[in-house]
Amino acid sequence: MKHLGRHVLAEICGCDFDILNDINRVEEIMVNAALEAGAEVRECVFHKFSPQGVSGVVVISESHLAIHTWPELGYAAVDVFTCGEKVNPWDACNYLTDHFNAKQTTAKEMKRGMMPEVYLGEAVNL
Amino acid sequence: MKHLGRHVLAEICGCDFDILNDINRVEEIMVNAALEAGAEVRECVFHKFSPQGVSGVVVISESHLAIHTWPELGYAAVDVFTCGEKVNPWDACNYLTDHFNAKQTTAKEMKRGMMPEVYLGEAVNL
Repeated sequence: MKHLGRHVLAEICGCDFDILNDINRVEEIMVNAALEAGAEVRECVFHKFSPQGVSGVVVISESHLAIHTWPELGYAAVDVFTCGEKVNPWDACNYLTDHFNAKQTTAKEMKRGMMPEVYLGEAVNL
Repeated sequence: MKHLGRHVLAEICGCDFDILNDINRVEEIMVNAALEAGAEVRECVFHKFSPQGVSGVVVISESHLAIHTWPELGYAAVDVFTCGEKVNPWDACNYLTDHFNAKQTTAKEMKRGMMPEVYLGEAVNL
């Protein structure tokens, strides 16, 4: 069995309130995390909640990065999902931890699209 | 300890090629899955790959739904991440399985934002 994608789910804690509540900074950091990991950015969408919090997604050729922030808790839930060999999702995850000034990050990697190797020979866009 | 969000990671297999390769149908099914689960849709972004495949995200007030399709494998990787008590991510997941004509779905639920209950009293937008 092989997998199509790698999906890192990160719990990023102890971050700066002001960064997590600033939609422009969150978007900039997320896009730069994607680029830092060598991904190709296709589309972005970010949304600011009232009174606080930001949600957003960066669609990349290799899948996506997503974030939801709770500035009042200093917490961001981050997903980095990548396909192919070129991009390492942990590079993006580490960039985000650094740039949100996180005190603690816990993360785990899930394999996505596990299937027999013979099927993956048919796959394109990897 | 309590959690802020529920995140269902679904591997949806044996789907129709024509549905998974049609950006408009994939977007329509994803938006309807969100609405079916009682979510409030905020933003959508979808991208069609050449020669095949669709990636897209629906940002909802309660977090997001994301999809990446490999029509040639009949496979879609789906994430449904919801916060609060109002929306059940499995309702969206079941809707997607039905509407992609999937032969088999395997899915697991991850808890996101696990933290001591006393902190969650501070959280807004739940």
